[in-house]
Amino acid sequence: MMTEKYVTTRITPLESLDTLSPYEIDKLQDVSQGGLYRLFRQCCLAVLNSGSQLDSTKMVLDKFSNFDIKISQKHRSVQLELRNAPAAAFVNGEIITGIREQLFSVLRDLLYVGTEMETCCPGASESETITNMVFHILRHANAIRPHIQPDLVVCWGGHSIDRGEYDYTKKVGYEMGLRGLNICTGCGPGAMKGPMKGATISHAKQRIKDGRYVGISEPGIIAAESPNPIVNELIIMPDIEKRLEAFVRLGHGIVVFPGGAGTAEEILYILGILLHEKNHNIPFPLVFTGPEGSDAYFNTIDDFIRATLGDEATKRYQIIVDDPHSVAEVMREGLEQVTRYRKATSESFHYNWQLYIPEAFQQPFEPTHENMAELKLMKGQPDFELAAHLRRALSGIVAGNVKEPGIRAIEENGPFEICGEKAIMQPLDHLLESFVAQRRMKINYQEYQPCYRLQPDSQLAEA
Amino acid sequence: MMTEKYVTTRITPLESLDTLSPYEIDKLQDVSQGGLYRLFRQCCLAVLNSGSQLDSTKMVLDKFSNFDIKISQKHRSVQLELRNAPAAAFVNGEIITGIREQLFSVLRDLLYVGTEMETCCPGASESETITNMVFHILRHANAIRPHIQPDLVVCWGGHSIDRGEYDYTKKVGYEMGLRGLNICTGCGPGAMKGPMKGATISHAKQRIKDGRYVGISEPGIIAAESPNPIVNELIIMPDIEKRLEAFVRLGHGIVVFPGGAGTAEEILYILGILLHEKNHNIPFPLVFTGPEGSDAYFNTIDDFIRATLGDEATKRYQIIVDDPHSVAEVMREGLEQVTRYRKATSESFHYNWQLYIPEAFQQPFEPTHENMAELKLMKGQPDFELAAHLRRALSGIVAGNVKEPGIRAIEENGPFEICGEKAIMQPLDHLLESFVAQRRMKINYQEYQPCYRLQPDSQLAEA
Amino acid sequence: MMTEKYVTTRITPLESLDTLSPYEIDKLQDVSQGGLYRLFRQCCLAVLNSGSQLDSTKMVLDKFSNFDIKISQKHRSVQLELRNAPAAAFVNGEIITGIREQLFSVLRDLLYVGTEMETCCPGASESETITNMVFHILRHANAIRPHIQPDLVVCWGGHSIDRGEYDYTKKVGYEMGLRGLNICTGCGPGAMKGPMKGATISHAKQRIKDGRYVGISEPGIIAAESPNPIVNELIIMPDIEKRLEAFVRLGHGIVVFPGGAGTAEEILYILGILLHEKNHNIPFPLVFTGPEGSDAYFNTIDDFIRATLGDEATKRYQIIVDDPHSVAEVMREGLEQVTRYRKATSESFHYNWQLYIPEAFQQPFEPTHENMAELKLMKGQPDFELAAHLRRALSGIVAGNVKEPGIRAIEENGPFEICGEKAIMQPLDHLLESFVAQRRMKINYQEYQPCYRLQPDSQLAEA
Amino acid sequence: MMTEKYVTTRITPLESLDTLSPYEIDKLQDVSQGGLYRLFRQCCLAVLNSGSQLDSTKMVLDKFSNFDIKISQKHRSVQLELRNAPAAAFVNGEIITGIREQLFSVLRDLLYVGTEMETCCPGASESETITNMVFHILRHANAIRPHIQPDLVVCWGGHSIDRGEYDYTKKVGYEMGLRGLNICTGCGPGAMKGPMKGATISHAKQRIKDGRYVGISEPGIIAAESPNPIVNELIIMPDIEKRLEAFVRLGHGIVVFPGGAGTAEEILYILGILLHEKNHNIPFPLVFTGPEGSDAYFNTIDDFIRATLGDEATKRYQIIVDDPHSVAEVMREGLEQVTRYRKATSESFHYNWQLYIPEAFQQPFEPTHENMAELKLMKGQPDFELAAHLRRALSGIVAGNVKEPGIRAIEENGPFEICGEKAIMQPLDHLLESFVAQRRMKINYQEYQPCYRLQPDSQLAEA
Repeated sequence: MMTEKYVTTRITPLESLDTLSPYEIDKLQDVSQGGLYRLFRQCCLAVLNSGSQLDSTKMVLDKFSNFDIKISQKHRSVQLELRNAPAAAFVNGEIITGIREQLFSVLRDLLYVGTEMETCCPGASESETITNMVFHILRHANAIRPHIQPDLVVCWGGHSIDRGEYDYTKKVGYEMGLRGLNICTGCGPGAMKGPMKGATISHAKQRIKDGRYVGISEPGIIAAESPNPIVNELIIMPDIEKRLEAFVRLGHGIVVFPGGAGTAEEILYILGILLHEKNHNIPFPLVFTGPEGSDAYFNTIDDFIRATLGDEATKRYQIIVDDPHSVAEVMREGLEQVTRYRKATSESFHYNWQLYIPEAFQQPFEPTHENMAELKLMKGQPDFELAAHLRRALSGIVAGNVKEPGIRAIEENGPFEICGEKAIMQPLDHLLESFVAQRRMKINYQEYQPCYRLQPDSQLAEA
Repeated sequence: MMTEKYVTTRITPLESLDTLSPYEIDKLQDVSQGGLYRLFRQCCLAVLNSGSQLDSTKMVLDKFSNFDIKISQKHRSVQLELRNAPAAAFVNGEIITGIREQLFSVLRDLLYVGTEMETCCPGASESETITNMVFHILRHANAIRPHIQPDLVVCWGGHSIDRGEYDYTKKVGYEMGLRGLNICTGCGPGAMKGPMKGATISHAKQRIKDGRYVGISEPGIIAAESPNPIVNELIIMPDIEKRLEAFVRLGHGIVVFPGGAGTAEEILYILGILLHEKNHNIPFPLVFTGPEGSDAYFNTIDDFIRATLGDEATKRYQIIVDDPHSVAEVMREGLEQVTRYRKATSESFHYNWQLYIPEAFQQPFEPTHENMAELKLMKGQPDFELAAHLRRALSGIVAGNVKEPGIRAIEENGPFEICGEKAIMQPLDHLLESFVAQRRMKINYQEYQPCYRLQPDSQLAEA
Repeated sequence: MMTEKYVTTRITPLESLDTLSPYEIDKLQDVSQGGLYRLFRQCCLAVLNSGSQLDSTKMVLDKFSNFDIKISQKHRSVQLELRNAPAAAFVNGEIITGIREQLFSVLRDLLYVGTEMETCCPGASESETITNMVFHILRHANAIRPHIQPDLVVCWGGHSIDRGEYDYTKKVGYEMGLRGLNICTGCGPGAMKGPMKGATISHAKQRIKDGRYVGISEPGIIAAESPNPIVNELIIMPDIEKRLEAFVRLGHGIVVFPGGAGTAEEILYILGILLHEKNHNIPFPLVFTGPEGSDAYFNTIDDFIRATLGDEATKRYQIIVDDPHSVAEVMREGLEQVTRYRKATSESFHYNWQLYIPEAFQQPFEPTHENMAELKLMKGQPDFELAAHLRRALSGIVAGNVKEPGIRAIEENGPFEICGEKAIMQPLDHLLESFVAQRRMKINYQEYQPCYRLQPDSQLAEA
Repeated sequence: MMTEKYVTTRITPLESLDTLSPYEIDKLQDVSQGGLYRLFRQCCLAVLNSGSQLDSTKMVLDKFSNFDIKISQKHRSVQLELRNAPAAAFVNGEIITGIREQLFSVLRDLLYVGTEMETCCPGASESETITNMVFHILRHANAIRPHIQPDLVVCWGGHSIDRGEYDYTKKVGYEMGLRGLNICTGCGPGAMKGPMKGATISHAKQRIKDGRYVGISEPGIIAAESPNPIVNELIIMPDIEKRLEAFVRLGHGIVVFPGGAGTAEEILYILGILLHEKNHNIPFPLVFTGPEGSDAYFNTIDDFIRATLGDEATKRYQIIVDDPHSVAEVMREGLEQVTRYRKATSESFHYNWQLYIPEAFQQPFEPTHENMAELKLMKGQPDFELAAHLRRALSGIVAGNVKEPGIRAIEENGPFEICGEKAIMQPLDHLLESFVAQRRMKINYQEYQPCYRLQPDSQLAEA
């Protein structure tokens, strides 16, 4: 039907956020190392490529190698000039409005992080400085809203899930939306899209016109996980660690659907934090859920957590199989508890300053072969530290699967070597095997070549 | 999960329409013949029964025989008191907002028709008076909006369709919504719900916050076709004929999905009108569409039209199989033509006064056994008159299938006897047979007992 | 500065209220006796003549004898074609938006009363029917709003007041607006304009964007009292009696500024009603106020009331001289009492159904010489009935001063003869004398020729 | 009436801007040199002191020496705790909403300038950096709006003007508002308040709900010129020079009413800029206007400009006496020219980047006795440089009149000594004399003691 695959056009923003100074425009056009052009082009392409079934950054970039974006200031506002943009972003030559908005969200966040953000906070620790930076980026993106109730549920899960799982995520989103809850995901297809579609329908039934569909991404992953145009608050965090921090400080509860390595990374992140003694009293509703038939999957996860982080860790979440209504009720009640706790402790409703995030979870982890080889995957350290190392291991595997530099590194140097104590490596091996077997590693699962090799270290085992 | 099946509660309207005089409240409470109570209760029950899989008015009324509704004026607004209402209309004891709105739409329309409507128009013909009455009801319901563009697409089709057809109606609604078009249906499940859900998603992507999801019903059918809560403009017309007139004067184009007798009735209605010579120049986009595999269905319809109304009639519609994108494009282009024509002829965008509707299509038809037996199903009359008789035949069959008095009449007196010329009766027989075979007559198709008997009249054949 | 005195142009409504049927358009264009053209033209002219210093309907009509208005339906909405309209309604050829709105309010109300209004209410008394009619007109004009608090203060007073009095009305409006109160007046200059201007400023300071500036007029007076464009809810009642009923049922309290015969008529109207025993318990804040120097004026009024209606009547109002802050506080506290009372008695906040208005105050009074001569201005009848007769006497004098048929009647037959018991006629004479002396009868006070002659009836005095 | 003079209460913001990090709250509470507490308290006091007749910062600070403000984060938003605040900011214990908004505007701007603003712009000149800083502050304050038309008229003029002049400024504001123009002033009473009140009334008549009433102040002057609560965009610039730059880059035209030294400073500022050859082609509507009787005043100004800056300078402005209608028309036409020019040159509508402002007008001038003595008030330099020196001279006099450090400096060291060439000093002397004679220097004009001594330098005269 659609014959043209590329569109060249000009667009202006709808809203008033986007007046730029000449210096900012220069920065966005600057193709040098310090400039923002490359990042800006890549993120905009990801936004325009919505609905695509490619989850490899490299394939996306290759397919649209002729794509170009120019920015200029016109008498009424900023103007973007798109060349050879993906045709699917347009209807009758007009860009889909949600995608238009998202392009300007990209612009807003890249500029803010790249030029305007304060370094802040005399006397603050490194960790506090990072937390404050996350706050500033979110506030600048208008995602921090004072007069809300705790109602933002983060949904995590795989982008590569089957039809039954996808329909289930829609039903959960529908039931949550019916209760007035809002949705936050990491963008992308699958479990990140389903809950938003479900909530869109129930928000329509409840006449909620200002429903929030928050998508939090980062430049390294966005091309592999294009935001759905329903996302009406797109936020680009500078790196995966700040993205994760944004999820847990902005969101008020988390629902985890079946997924692969990325989802496991997220689970380890939140559990590692909640296991820290400073967070013991903080209520944080956390539900793992999937449709009938996903029992096996969650048992694998549950076993892995028990084996590595211990039974205590399993008390922080609840597994609910095939019951969207219960998931929504458990979240609703959990959020009421969050509300009471924040009132009692004078914590804001809009940003969870209280939650203690150890610096180990905040420091950017670069998944080089060297760094991956040095992970400390052994017992004999505090649970939250082990969780941090496991989180990094999985983060590296995601990078090797779908992120541009990760894929290149694997192409050049072969799979990551990950080694550690046998008591950890065996459950990890089992977990990853099951992801491969369940086809959760990549959308094109048939071609999947593992980007890692696990090596139980006999020395460690002896120690 | 949900244990309680009935809810008793009090609700007030959200908006300002609903201040009532004591006389109006009396009228709504009045259980006597001239009072509105019975009608009001029945329509409210239908609205509250949203999502139900019952398409028999009688079964709905029986199931909720304890349901009661009281109305009173409080210091801030009207209050409805519901007793033993269907639990599915509530979430955590709170009524779903869309359903709340619809209850007050029912109240608004019943009161207007029952007490306030003018008789109008010195010097106007009977037909003009009816057309004006339809206009007044729609305007009073705020459905007539001057500053719109022609963008309202009426979707007709069966309430009892299979999953593949239902998904297809969603896709067509999605593609139309992506082009900024709005949806009007007759309320109810199936083809009346799918397009609205699809458009809700694409309107969200296009950031269209004021998308219109118009549902036009009438007291006789509403219990069998509960409005979906997405419907944000519910209008209750006094009878089926005014409902049909409302569709074709308020809507700017029509998409017909697969359906049963009701859908065929609607097709005959619009074709009968368009065939009238006074309407030859009026553009009216009309598309019949369904998913892969529906070719057979539309061929049956097409054959029936050809055989009864002639080849000329088939020029007013277009059949598109399994191509939601094309359906949306054809409608969009058709609506542009409508726009140009109305501008050229100074016709309003919001109500199609120009369309000539012969009185035969306006006069209420009561489907008694006697009236059904007297239908003139023969050639040798103008096409539009034959279409009017065929329309009535099908209308009677719908009544016998799902409307309360119709079902009762069949129970008492056996099936309707419908007779006519063989050249008409054979195609009609073939059409109805195929509806039964395709399970389109009732949701509980297994139990379907035809409510009619067709009798080719040999006398007429000779004539 | 402005050289052109007349403007010819076309305008369309801003809002969606104004879709008309061809029958309605015909009715508005109909120049015959039963048609609405003459009334429509006269009211529109009054609206367009805003800011004028003429308070004689006749002079206005003469000055703009070439003014014409045509109405038609275009594809997007109704269109008004104005010929030779007063230039002051336009800025750079564009009509002032407030005036545009008001033209369509006129259209709305004349059509409703002229064609659509129900006769209503089987079993209702004549009085109840009138009350219900007032309710329907107000509701149709969207003036009845369920979710309000009692906050609408009616301001009465002269259109012909001096600068100091005018500034004082602004200050009172300002203080009331600062407390979130809304304003309702009878349209026109002077005391009807000042409070709205004051409230506009304080509403701006309080960021109240939906402040209500309700103007209630009637065809007979509107040309003499053009609405100020600040009026954002203009309502045209069919006659002076329904206008007065609208004031006291829609408004929640009343402030009376200095004025002339019209103001005295209004005072007698509200006092007559409040004196009725059925209304004894109903709270109704009523304040007479003016700037320094207005003591004398209010003493005259107070004396008149005492002499005619008795001391009891004076308990229903409070006189406050030169203290805008206190006036606003007294009203605010009075409205809180109204709120409590309505809650306690389940009365609506938006329409005072409870207030009993004797039919004597509802029946239209036509001020012919004959009717004026027959007024019963004597003691020995219930207070509220005497008040009703006095009200009519003053109503007739207003008609003779500024209304078209009244002026003509006086020109033809000389002044009205009003006779009655001396104990009533003397205070009345004193009151009217003081209005003339204080130049409150007409804007062009120098030319004022009394339109009445008072005749104490010796017979009555003896009785 | 009002007995309490001080109010202690807590307030929260209405809107969503005001979520703060703990570090920002600390900064606002910090009473040390680097902290913001002193500045924050002083500006908030100025905002709360609205309507006061004190124009001396010192007197305001003395009167409310017990005033205190604390800030904290609550679960829903920031909270301000006010102690001993001026009672006039409250109605029935509730803060006036406009004042509430302004308090949070103060907070927003002080924090942004104090902690978050970038230093920007590698490769930019000092002048460009300042211009960019002004842009960033305005954009952060949401004053830069892309989709506007050029419609923002800056009104300058005295805060100490007589009743006739004040009424005239209202009329000019009214006529401009009637044409849809928006108003920007420097806050404070007199000519800064009148145009906003006038425009508020005409915006109400035109149903303009989003009228802009922009007030641009700076910490040094705000206590002497409390913003009127009508100001719905209050912006606190860091110093007088950036405040002036904000006026001329944000505003699209300027109307100057009669005023004193501050007004003359502003006139010299804009004329000095417009005289620069780089700005010769840039249209900038500039009107001096006042009521009947102000001819003399403007002649004085005109003579002074002619004598010092030459005839060329007088071509950039137009003097209109007693004709609000013409002023509005001249501005409207001027703004159309601005619109055309910006379109033609691709300049934004919302910030006048094109206007060249020599660094001499941007560098903060500290009015010490030493700096005042060193001003170069002589011919033989480019016009714009002379204008810059004259601007500083007048800026110093304003500081000596109403700013806190200026008043203290005068108290300690006596009047400023200003010397220069006779050809400049004589006109200057004449100008200042006339301000004193016309009582334009201070609100309490009777006590006015000049804070300057002019000294024609004979040496310079010879040169």
